[in-house]
Amino acid sequence: MSDIHFDHGLYGQLRRQAGADWHAFIDHAFVRQLGSGTLPQSAFRRYLTQDYLFLIHFARAYALLVYKMRTLPEIRAAAASLGAIVAELPLHVGYCASWGLTEAQMASEPEAMETINYTRYVLDIGHAGDALDLLAALLPCVAGYAEIGLRLRNQPTTVIAGNPYAAWINNYGDAHYLHGVQAALDLLERVGEQRGASSRFNALSEIFTTAARLEAAFWQMGLNAQ
Amino acid sequence: MSDIHFDHGLYGQLRRQAGADWHAFIDHAFVRQLGSGTLPQSAFRRYLTQDYLFLIHFARAYALLVYKMRTLPEIRAAAASLGAIVAELPLHVGYCASWGLTEAQMASEPEAMETINYTRYVLDIGHAGDALDLLAALLPCVAGYAEIGLRLRNQPTTVIAGNPYAAWINNYGDAHYLHGVQAALDLLERVGEQRGASSRFNALSEIFTTAARLEAAFWQMGLNAQ
Amino acid sequence: MSDIHFDHGLYGQLRRQAGADWHAFIDHAFVRQLGSGTLPQSAFRRYLTQDYLFLIHFARAYALLVYKMRTLPEIRAAAASLGAIVAELPLHVGYCASWGLTEAQMASEPEAMETINYTRYVLDIGHAGDALDLLAALLPCVAGYAEIGLRLRNQPTTVIAGNPYAAWINNYGDAHYLHGVQAALDLLERVGEQRGASSRFNALSEIFTTAARLEAAFWQMGLNAQ
Amino acid sequence: MSDIHFDHGLYGQLRRQAGADWHAFIDHAFVRQLGSGTLPQSAFRRYLTQDYLFLIHFARAYALLVYKMRTLPEIRAAAASLGAIVAELPLHVGYCASWGLTEAQMASEPEAMETINYTRYVLDIGHAGDALDLLAALLPCVAGYAEIGLRLRNQPTTVIAGNPYAAWINNYGDAHYLHGVQAALDLLERVGEQRGASSRFNALSEIFTTAARLEAAFWQMGLNAQ
Repeated sequence: MSDIHFDHGLYGQLRRQAGADWHAFIDHAFVRQLGSGTLPQSAFRRYLTQDYLFLIHFARAYALLVYKMRTLPEIRAAAASLGAIVAELPLHVGYCASWGLTEAQMASEPEAMETINYTRYVLDIGHAGDALDLLAALLPCVAGYAEIGLRLRNQPTTVIAGNPYAAWINNYGDAHYLHGVQAALDLLERVGEQRGASSRFNALSEIFTTAARLEAAFWQMGLNAQ
Repeated sequence: MSDIHFDHGLYGQLRRQAGADWHAFIDHAFVRQLGSGTLPQSAFRRYLTQDYLFLIHFARAYALLVYKMRTLPEIRAAAASLGAIVAELPLHVGYCASWGLTEAQMASEPEAMETINYTRYVLDIGHAGDALDLLAALLPCVAGYAEIGLRLRNQPTTVIAGNPYAAWINNYGDAHYLHGVQAALDLLERVGEQRGASSRFNALSEIFTTAARLEAAFWQMGLNAQ
Repeated sequence: MSDIHFDHGLYGQLRRQAGADWHAFIDHAFVRQLGSGTLPQSAFRRYLTQDYLFLIHFARAYALLVYKMRTLPEIRAAAASLGAIVAELPLHVGYCASWGLTEAQMASEPEAMETINYTRYVLDIGHAGDALDLLAALLPCVAGYAEIGLRLRNQPTTVIAGNPYAAWINNYGDAHYLHGVQAALDLLERVGEQRGASSRFNALSEIFTTAARLEAAFWQMGLNAQ
Repeated sequence: MSDIHFDHGLYGQLRRQAGADWHAFIDHAFVRQLGSGTLPQSAFRRYLTQDYLFLIHFARAYALLVYKMRTLPEIRAAAASLGAIVAELPLHVGYCASWGLTEAQMASEPEAMETINYTRYVLDIGHAGDALDLLAALLPCVAGYAEIGLRLRNQPTTVIAGNPYAAWINNYGDAHYLHGVQAALDLLERVGEQRGASSRFNALSEIFTTAARLEAAFWQMGLNAQ
């Protein structure tokens, strides 16, 4: 999976036009401090708890995508992504437990404004628009985390030995995760061709960039908790 | 309003590609018998009752369109169409009363298969797709009825004097109705430009043609009741 | 799984009130002829093709249910049902191949009116109502097929040896399928308690009974094809 | 309309259980400073701009409510509320112009986090739940503004002469606005009876109270802009 390409096709175009907003997401101070192992643990715990709440609504958004599909191959592709999220949630919960966070605690925590903003924005885009609009809102998270994981793994400044966040870093760069990301990128290309991406590029760009900004705000919410 | 054009722009393209399916809708035997005044009254009563049930779900579909809009001018345009449908319903009910059908009777009548098919197809297209998909499903009814009304008015074979259906014919060809139709056509053009109609033409055509076929099936359901 | 109970709890109440409509579904002539092996093969092929098209929209309806859930345990439960449908579809396709029907053929077949009616009715209920309304529309299919499968297996009039439909009968009565049905019944009970089923029983009954009627119409559509 | 009752029926129960959260909304410092005329104009302008953006999505949420209705009287009632919002928007825009804010300016302003939070929360409740859930999310705004308007009008501490916000105060306490509020309260009662409000009270309370909290956060967003 070393050959996943973030600069190809429709995804590449969307990512490029997001420019500084994209960079502010994938190279956020939260991410850099994860890489160096200097992130305050309070910030990481805040992030993990809100990410649990985020994933619930992200799974709901992927379920909405499955509904919006109309042929069996597309339903299968979207349902596989949903299944992967739902299957990962217990792993996420297990990982959080290693940080002293129980599922009951996380489930009863109020959603941060940044969590509501991001998840409900994606859901409204999904209901109001079509599968292509919804994919443009989902991909910054799906593929952005892969890019972040790969960058951290490959960056000389990243510390793995003794880094309390090493397991997190490895998770988002691993082959299984990347396989799912490639499937999501493929689905975006296919739906983009069917549904006129080229002549809707500006509207799709606005969705994609807004989602990237909401991702950066989500990191910042974690950082603010230190 | 003599200058409403059914062959211009995106609507014109969609209508043209529907070809024989379009003709089977606007020139259905039910319509021809309306024009000549020879339609059995049992067929017309069946149609009126199911049209009452149809309009409830058509109003719901227009409400969904309002939801799917994102700017105030578009919300206003779609809400005006919804308002027109809701305002017309009492007129429709009053007209049905002149045929001996009370609202309570019509509301308690089971929906015909053809009514469910058409309305729920439109609603599913609306939820699964975007505003453009939904407009492609709504326009065959909105603009098709105007075309039928104008054709009947202008056709030499149409009988008005002594035709029990004269009021119906006049309703769908009148200036107020046509004004609303023009607004709906304008909204289709505007949304079509925003959302890449040109590169989604095949998918939009399939929706438009399916709706035209479901309209023809709706006429046939009326005719079958004689 | 011999201890699945179709007469317990909310499901039992809904099934009981459906009375003759329920019986007309689970004891339809199509079902009886499946059991005796006397069903014309043309009727079965028609049914299989439309069932393929049905399952696509049934999967979409289950995806909508996942979206409508708000806690992780409920999302998991609904997503498991969706996953089961999507996983079964290739088996269904394989089974259809043994009847000479390829997936490409089935996918290009127009949906029967009865297929559109049933699936789009369920989807509209799901969008307009809450998870409980949607479950009331889904359960007649999910649990009804289990009841039919078990009845056919246990009925002395059922012929297995030499019956070309034996594999179909065994499929819907097998332990794996019944396990999924029990999970769906449990989810209905849980959501019913949360969302006031007892004081909404009439409205839920109307949905459940309508779905049972649409199931019977679906069998009839198959039978009509002979 | 002096006899609008905020403590009757289901609405009264929901409002009472919201307790301190309700009080924090209707007696927010922003409201008190409106009444005394001491609110910084920068705070009011920020509020007006975000309220414009809010109303767009509030209209969309009411459109969703219309879709979720199933009988003509209910469709009419919900569509009347939608029509009132859409008809008021030009008045709102005219009023904003008197504060030096053009519609183009307001439409191009980014939504505040508090605006996104509130509107998209309501929309997600509406899509995931039924008409009763959605009404529980909409009423705190609809009826809360009436209560605030009436309180300000009747409170001895309120300054009208020379108060730059006098027109705003009068708007939300006037008979026409209150008539629409009463219709919304009536619709809540009716839908509540149909859909088992009594046995879903805890879930409805959570929605209502969350919306009240998001209203208070919206005032605070205005206040923070001074």
